[in-house]
Amino acid sequence: MGEPTPKTAGLIGGGLIGRGWMILFAVAGWNVRVFDANLDGEAPARASVRGNLAIMQEEGLIASAAEVEARIRFVPTLEAAVEGVDWVQESVFEDVEVKRQVYDAASALTEPEVVIGSSGGGIPPDDFTATASHRERCLIVHPFNPPHLVPVVELVRATWTSDQAIERAKAVMVELGRKPVVVNRAIMGFVLNRLQGVVIDEAIALVGDGIISPEDLDACMSHGLGRRWTFMGPFETMEMNSVGGFKEYATRYGPLYRQMMQVERPWTEATLDKIEAWRRAEYPEIDDITARRLWRDRTLIKLGKAIGATS
Amino acid sequence: MGEPTPKTAGLIGGGLIGRGWMILFAVAGWNVRVFDANLDGEAPARASVRGNLAIMQEEGLIASAAEVEARIRFVPTLEAAVEGVDWVQESVFEDVEVKRQVYDAASALTEPEVVIGSSGGGIPPDDFTATASHRERCLIVHPFNPPHLVPVVELVRATWTSDQAIERAKAVMVELGRKPVVVNRAIMGFVLNRLQGVVIDEAIALVGDGIISPEDLDACMSHGLGRRWTFMGPFETMEMNSVGGFKEYATRYGPLYRQMMQVERPWTEATLDKIEAWRRAEYPEIDDITARRLWRDRTLIKLGKAIGATS
Repeated sequence: MGEPTPKTAGLIGGGLIGRGWMILFAVAGWNVRVFDANLDGEAPARASVRGNLAIMQEEGLIASAAEVEARIRFVPTLEAAVEGVDWVQESVFEDVEVKRQVYDAASALTEPEVVIGSSGGGIPPDDFTATASHRERCLIVHPFNPPHLVPVVELVRATWTSDQAIERAKAVMVELGRKPVVVNRAIMGFVLNRLQGVVIDEAIALVGDGIISPEDLDACMSHGLGRRWTFMGPFETMEMNSVGGFKEYATRYGPLYRQMMQVERPWTEATLDKIEAWRRAEYPEIDDITARRLWRDRTLIKLGKAIGATS
Repeated sequence: MGEPTPKTAGLIGGGLIGRGWMILFAVAGWNVRVFDANLDGEAPARASVRGNLAIMQEEGLIASAAEVEARIRFVPTLEAAVEGVDWVQESVFEDVEVKRQVYDAASALTEPEVVIGSSGGGIPPDDFTATASHRERCLIVHPFNPPHLVPVVELVRATWTSDQAIERAKAVMVELGRKPVVVNRAIMGFVLNRLQGVVIDEAIALVGDGIISPEDLDACMSHGLGRRWTFMGPFETMEMNSVGGFKEYATRYGPLYRQMMQVERPWTEATLDKIEAWRRAEYPEIDDITARRLWRDRTLIKLGKAIGATS
């Protein structure tokens, strides 16, 4: 019977993001084949991966960095990287023509059910997956930097991406210890960079207007908002500060928040209800929020200790 | 010689925020006198403070919850709370008239150099401190929820707040283990709630537009952006993802981020230079960023462990 046969990932591109995928797949026990168009790219990529694996071993996340690294093999052609693999991940630079060529070639060389994920953060997937064979298994699988340490991964649908492909991608990402989220349309910036973008934009405006120094602005996040947001999203955070759940908070403080904004985008009743429904599915009784607050407080204490030990 | 005489804080208001201040001052070894207009407020306030102190003792943050709690005394009048104290903290509800009365009374009963801080998050301090005696020691000292566990505190200047008062407030907040930041003008929402507001607004819009589910939106923060923002602000995060520092990143990705925004507010060269100057004061050489990235990676590992142990 023995061990199950390890699966194989074919990675196209050995830059910063590609290296993150090497680590993630190899740590999960997959064999990894890498093709980088720059054939001199192996040495710097290996050095960087080795450095990251050493830290992970030191911190007790993996038993043997050497054993993990041994699963990563560089190959001289795209064909050798993707033939017969269980997953293809494209991490080339943001050029629609190059991406299209990778998708056309990789889709011709793999079984129809193999997901071909793109690490791209900008170009809509429709623009480079239209001519791929069995294009319904194509989607964006966008990690966040550094990919091996930030859990979230955005799964962004092309117009033709099938639900089956989304489910397969979710399963593989969970196997890799990732937290997949589904983005239904490839709007500019997807979700992560839009949320990051509004913060950066407001932050720059506040410094520009002389309201606060750059240093203190950053501290507002790292010693304030970020402490909570590292384990609760904005909606759950609102609920924690409410007396009656998310919608009660949104209704009570909505007008105040809207006055701070420079554009008026209505917070519709339907949208608030959708969010409230999710919260109540998680915590049916408002009283459950009180118990959840104790969890919040303990987590804040543990985070404070973890950060205090390193900063 | 013996112990130094403990200092005394006079707290006005025993609600959620007032309780946070009771904990913070008492844990730091101060004697605490509390006046709450609701004279039946002592029992629920004590029960809540006791619950929080018990968790802190369990987690090893304090040696004896009972000893800390013994420093907190409820008194029947505002006068008894503030007479002869070293710090006054007002945490009453957001009513400009009530706040003005507290400021007028407390300022008449305390030495001119005693800071009178307001926990208020909304009303500009000019509106209720104008008639206080020695109004140059009046300012907003705005904690974030839960106050005893989130380190940041916004010090918001009134028009007449002196630099000396800001420096005294900073020193006391640092003594309490807080991270004070200075907000130079009381704009709506100050800084923390403005940053929170843009995220909430974008998050509600993304759910409303059907781009993402409420659950996945929250996960984008709690498993993505928040993991970094809990120990690095937005500016340092940008720098970490740059090849040449903050300004290189802002200049390279600025146009992309601006396309996501709905309003055009210019990112001026002068503002970018101000932020870049702070980053280079912290880390003069761009090569220093590489070393800082290793610190980032180790911190992310420790946070992941701390969160994994509780979620």
